[in-house]
Amino acid sequence: MNQQVGKASIRFGEPVYIINSASIVGTKEGQGPLKDLFDMVGEDDMFGAKTWEEAESSLQKDAVYLALNKANLKPNDVRYLFAGDLLGQSIATSFGVSSFEIPMFGVYGACSTCGESLSLGAMTIAGGYADRVVCVTSSHFASAEKEFRFPLEYGNQRPLSASWTVTGSGAFVVDKDPGNTPRACITGITTGKIMDYGLKDSMNMGACMAPAAADTIEQHFKDFQCGPDVFDKIITGDLGSVGQTVLLDLMREKGYDIASIHMDCGVEIYDAKTQDTHAGGSGCGCSAVTLSAYILKQLEEKKWKKVLFLPTGALLSKTSFNEGQSVPGIAHGLVLESIK
Amino acid sequence: MNQQVGKASIRFGEPVYIINSASIVGTKEGQGPLKDLFDMVGEDDMFGAKTWEEAESSLQKDAVYLALNKANLKPNDVRYLFAGDLLGQSIATSFGVSSFEIPMFGVYGACSTCGESLSLGAMTIAGGYADRVVCVTSSHFASAEKEFRFPLEYGNQRPLSASWTVTGSGAFVVDKDPGNTPRACITGITTGKIMDYGLKDSMNMGACMAPAAADTIEQHFKDFQCGPDVFDKIITGDLGSVGQTVLLDLMREKGYDIASIHMDCGVEIYDAKTQDTHAGGSGCGCSAVTLSAYILKQLEEKKWKKVLFLPTGALLSKTSFNEGQSVPGIAHGLVLESIK
Repeated sequence: MNQQVGKASIRFGEPVYIINSASIVGTKEGQGPLKDLFDMVGEDDMFGAKTWEEAESSLQKDAVYLALNKANLKPNDVRYLFAGDLLGQSIATSFGVSSFEIPMFGVYGACSTCGESLSLGAMTIAGGYADRVVCVTSSHFASAEKEFRFPLEYGNQRPLSASWTVTGSGAFVVDKDPGNTPRACITGITTGKIMDYGLKDSMNMGACMAPAAADTIEQHFKDFQCGPDVFDKIITGDLGSVGQTVLLDLMREKGYDIASIHMDCGVEIYDAKTQDTHAGGSGCGCSAVTLSAYILKQLEEKKWKKVLFLPTGALLSKTSFNEGQSVPGIAHGLVLESIK
Repeated sequence: MNQQVGKASIRFGEPVYIINSASIVGTKEGQGPLKDLFDMVGEDDMFGAKTWEEAESSLQKDAVYLALNKANLKPNDVRYLFAGDLLGQSIATSFGVSSFEIPMFGVYGACSTCGESLSLGAMTIAGGYADRVVCVTSSHFASAEKEFRFPLEYGNQRPLSASWTVTGSGAFVVDKDPGNTPRACITGITTGKIMDYGLKDSMNMGACMAPAAADTIEQHFKDFQCGPDVFDKIITGDLGSVGQTVLLDLMREKGYDIASIHMDCGVEIYDAKTQDTHAGGSGCGCSAVTLSAYILKQLEEKKWKKVLFLPTGALLSKTSFNEGQSVPGIAHGLVLESIK
């Protein structure tokens, strides 16, 4: 029996299984610390397409195809697709997944979209609405720069607090049954609310998102009446090194010390010293490919038994930025556990 | 017990109730055929804001506030918010609803977003994840023109197949219990898939979306093993007059004559002859305010007992259009019934 837990959380009556997944990344990610773990690294960042947007669509399509293929499934075996990306009107998704002809729910939570899609996917399965869904998200460095910042040709300078949008897509096959080789299971979720501390620096998104991550983590602890000690890791999506510091400080103010178990996908995915990525990786693809390639592997190998996975999103557009608006954040949490 | 029905549909074990709702519109909508039915008509289309985007955010905020107020509820009484709009990165939503501090799922399905948000909201309640949610969507003529077409000052000519984006927001309080005065109930859903017939004319979105509407309607008939005869009305979101003709033709080709019971919110909301709105209204707000002001009223008064409500979305962005991509469509169906 599914349970509403506290103000913003759900404990699933039966675990929902991530039975397979796929990660496809670009060249820079393929040179980073996780390079040997990704399923596929592109030869260049165009992925055979003519535009950056098409390249990102191609990433999503390939990630879904590969995840299904690894699970010996066909698109027809999937009841619903939960998908999203960062581009205006989510076009990477629309043109990426249409050929699968799977009934689709489009989701948007900026870089938290991976968490949102997995939350809704898990709810759909645990609610009896589907036996199997696929959740997919993507981002692309070049399409994101074009969408949010400057033309690449302009060669703008980036402050050290800026993050580097990950070129990559992660797709997850989420199932009612564990099958033969489940990667991990989802046992609960905590859904974030929009947090706006009034920060306006779009070149410091880590700091803009940290309050949302802190809020969702605290809410999770309150809802489940637990603390950091029940987790092997608390993993944020793309706070980067600056946002990580802010998060740890905010958590200390709330009375929790999570420093020893905190990990951030944006910090892990690049070697900031040699790859010139400043604060770290970001984008819908950052947490998705790190989850597929690295986090699920640790859970599979039982190096970690239980983690709180929280993709983080900065809710801005170039219009809202140019109009002087702040950059609110949101973070959606999932409890991921290794298979017993 | 909730049932998976056919390939893309769900029949809820218990009906989910729309216990209250609110519609707020701009001046042009306030001069149209439905003018006396909206809860609030703005004095001008800025709604007290400094930018069109802020005006749209203000619309969403006021619609949620009003819907809650009419139901004698506070934001704290709502477990989840399902919200979206048409702007890049859904900024009307992010800046519109953040002050409610309700855990939020951001959704994107272009103008089908009203159907998507209500589908997920109903699934959330029927799945036992919440006792009450709010679903809200919006659009604004001026923010949409800026986002998708030309600056208003440019005064571009519009072909007769073009639609007019509705300035408006509709918010719905969706509840497990009927309360004293429920407006209608949701008994089932059919989730759409992306349909791409290769049409590229963004000034004829009705024709681009009609195949998606036809597909979801046919899928609904197949899944529930029924035909048009079980409905008093089949109501699309914003096909407009051109798209309506295409839909009726496509349905005839599929062997269904729905002409006598078809209605389109985009056709109803303006008087095309006197309001110079060409093919009709469009936008996330179009189906949302028509549902709140008109459709739910007919169900409340039992003039209609059962309708299939299908908001329709055109999945384009200015980038995809400028890059020569087609305009795929999607339509999400809901079975709405009067209270017995």
